Amino acid sequence: MTTLPAAFLDAASALLGPERWRTDEPTRQAHGQDDSRRFALPDAVAFPRDAEEVAALVRACAAHRVALVARGAGTATTGAAVPFNGGVVLSFARMNRIVEIRAADRCAIVQPGVLNGDLQEALAPHGLFWPPDPSSAAMCSVGGNLATNAGGPRAVKYGASRDNVLGLVAVTGSGEIIRCGGPYTKDATGYDLTHLIVGSEGTLALIVEATLKLTPRPRAQAGLRAFYRDVASAAAAVSRVMAQPVVPAMLEFMDAHAIALLRHNGSDVPEAGAMLLIEADGDEDTLPYALQSLADAAEGDGMLSLDVAADGVARDRLWAARKALSPALRTIKPGKINEDVVVPVSRIPDLVSAMEALSVQADLPIVCFGHAGNGNLHVNIMYNDADAAETARAKAAMPKIFETVLALGGTLSGEHGIGVAKRDFMAQAFDAATLAAMRAVKAALDPAGILNPGKVLPPLAG
Amino acid sequence: MTTLPAAFLDAASALLGPERWRTDEPTRQAHGQDDSRRFALPDAVAFPRDAEEVAALVRACAAHRVALVARGAGTATTGAAVPFNGGVVLSFARMNRIVEIRAADRCAIVQPGVLNGDLQEALAPHGLFWPPDPSSAAMCSVGGNLATNAGGPRAVKYGASRDNVLGLVAVTGSGEIIRCGGPYTKDATGYDLTHLIVGSEGTLALIVEATLKLTPRPRAQAGLRAFYRDVASAAAAVSRVMAQPVVPAMLEFMDAHAIALLRHNGSDVPEAGAMLLIEADGDEDTLPYALQSLADAAEGDGMLSLDVAADGVARDRLWAARKALSPALRTIKPGKINEDVVVPVSRIPDLVSAMEALSVQADLPIVCFGHAGNGNLHVNIMYNDADAAETARAKAAMPKIFETVLALGGTLSGEHGIGVAKRDFMAQAFDAATLAAMRAVKAALDPAGILNPGKVLPPLAG
Repeated sequence: MTTLPAAFLDAASALLGPERWRTDEPTRQAHGQDDSRRFALPDAVAFPRDAEEVAALVRACAAHRVALVARGAGTATTGAAVPFNGGVVLSFARMNRIVEIRAADRCAIVQPGVLNGDLQEALAPHGLFWPPDPSSAAMCSVGGNLATNAGGPRAVKYGASRDNVLGLVAVTGSGEIIRCGGPYTKDATGYDLTHLIVGSEGTLALIVEATLKLTPRPRAQAGLRAFYRDVASAAAAVSRVMAQPVVPAMLEFMDAHAIALLRHNGSDVPEAGAMLLIEADGDEDTLPYALQSLADAAEGDGMLSLDVAADGVARDRLWAARKALSPALRTIKPGKINEDVVVPVSRIPDLVSAMEALSVQADLPIVCFGHAGNGNLHVNIMYNDADAAETARAKAAMPKIFETVLALGGTLSGEHGIGVAKRDFMAQAFDAATLAAMRAVKAALDPAGILNPGKVLPPLAG
Repeated sequence: MTTLPAAFLDAASALLGPERWRTDEPTRQAHGQDDSRRFALPDAVAFPRDAEEVAALVRACAAHRVALVARGAGTATTGAAVPFNGGVVLSFARMNRIVEIRAADRCAIVQPGVLNGDLQEALAPHGLFWPPDPSSAAMCSVGGNLATNAGGPRAVKYGASRDNVLGLVAVTGSGEIIRCGGPYTKDATGYDLTHLIVGSEGTLALIVEATLKLTPRPRAQAGLRAFYRDVASAAAAVSRVMAQPVVPAMLEFMDAHAIALLRHNGSDVPEAGAMLLIEADGDEDTLPYALQSLADAAEGDGMLSLDVAADGVARDRLWAARKALSPALRTIKPGKINEDVVVPVSRIPDLVSAMEALSVQADLPIVCFGHAGNGNLHVNIMYNDADAAETARAKAAMPKIFETVLALGGTLSGEHGIGVAKRDFMAQAFDAATLAAMRAVKAALDPAGILNPGKVLPPLAG
């Protein structure tokens, strides 16, 4: 049974009608979870069709102090879309139109519910793509990508979601429709609300339309796979690769545990202390040179071997190791805490050796891999979630990851966001004055505090 | 005579001492102007040495409701650094240290008073550069670049200031020191205050330290000069250039008036309706291919001729036309209103033809040139500032530029900012709800309203 005020229920129902304002149990059950496997039941689920309906619903929520949690495709890994305070889940499933593809202006205007994969498909005939490529691309929404500042391996060359949005139409917590930025790539006009709202996880304003920056599709790709004696020599190679002018299209790292795991599962990978997967893109003429520059930079003290693969089957085989990793992880332990932390590129060796020490201390395998070019590593603590002691040790190790990362001058999240999963570590990542400034901005845009309450910012002490 | 409260004067003087807290006439006179030729006398000028002194001064200003205008090198073109309300000018001249160059992390940590040109010089031995390249680079400060989101021709490939900053230490209007971002290139941790503060022209917070994103210096450059029958065919070429994967390092446009002016002044330029200057960068191996891709894209219906110039003297000669343009403008008329408006790239022809019509209507020459790849054109209304009628016609024409740009889906400024020069057009560029959201953010970070009052946001009506 919903506990929402009757006057609010009447208003919402009158606004959206019975088909798009749902309080039935199955619909509520289907909209309470995200990919963090957290769950909370909303009191109602709304399916607005346009910005005006979103604004009217937000105004009703603000008037009645009802919590409102925006939801894209529910693939967040942090609980960001889970309605812990009940209230309304606002699904963008019915706002999933590509409004316009403006090839000559290299931008697309989309509603937030468009799936990343569907957008890419629509852009392909224009020879364009939208760079953010989270591993969930086929099923995650552009609105969700923007809300969490999602990235992916291509971010090393093309940036994450925030770097690939030119303008937004958004609904603030007061139910006002605001418009910032537009179909242009240079802007020094007023405050940059666009980039502020991106990554704010639905706590400042709800994105109801986005103008996305598009990039011409490269005509050709090729890959390199380099093996190193140890993490330090691989990290030195990462710094060399990033210091020369050919920016790799991807630059992925795997530690010795990841390599051992792949070997154990039959992958075609030699024994090594660390591995880099490096991708070049460009056109047929320049790709060999780009690849050579990247290979030259990859080479250095501690490199054991280097494979080159042109586009097609050979390249797929090379990247197969990366794709095999996540399934392979499940063969060690059923439970996994995956933290997408960030450190300065030069501190990758320190992070990995600290994780090795933590692994010994916690008596649990820790596997590190990820987007080395951005210093954005995925640290995976592996544990048996049916074993209470292992689970407790894994949970106790988690804060130590964050402590290490912050001590190395890094930060909590590179592309997953904060949600509730990392919320209580925000007070370690930011000092009190900075958190207070964030809270002031939140209060400015959401004075009633109804937008995704309890996410991103830690509760005030006392 | 200063009109500041005595208690405030005592506090500021005790904080900074007589050498760095100045109320003498010559110092005040020297800190009241920017490159817009606007002037207002401050009551005092402060030269803090570090973040703590800035914070203490801001707290004193907030307590006594004294206006505070931050100042870099004073090269703004909008009046952004002019203290129209009197109060204190805070000069960052004594905070001009490069704190650290972290080549392995491709970032530099700098104080705001560092000159752009000095920074570039310090970075060169590391094979790195900071992309923003406003024409005043030799004498403008990095803090000023960040405050206005300054760009330059390279922005088409490398982005403007906002795209090239990773983190900030800043002092809010409450005198609190906040820290956001850091020496890493991917971040999904909390609200993006970094990019919000960039471009806010000292109205939200004062940048006291910035972590700048650096880029490896290309090993070689080369240029193309293409002439077109008319603006439409040049603009179509701009769209083609931007739609293929080789991003030009610069892509500059000149209209027929600019070309005629250069010819009149003896430049080596043929008669044409429009010209594009296109730069490629890369390394020795790939540059010829990049240049060929750009030349192929430049070629098309309406192209009259194309010159190619390799690095060195030939390239300098090719770019000489661009450099000769600003001095040449002065030979037509002594007065100039230069608006750095932005339109979607596909609307460049509409903008230029509207400006031709406006030129006829105002009976004044209007010359358009600038950063075509970003749709960021400089529209120059030329007039005799000793002639009252011409001056009046020029001033009357200015709002029509903005009306045109906004009607074409563009915006007021691409790289100069708003200051007071464009402030009163903000209500045309943004609707009331969006301006209200900007005002709320301003109040959140500067509750006393002391930071650069009267800039960026128009005064509230009524």
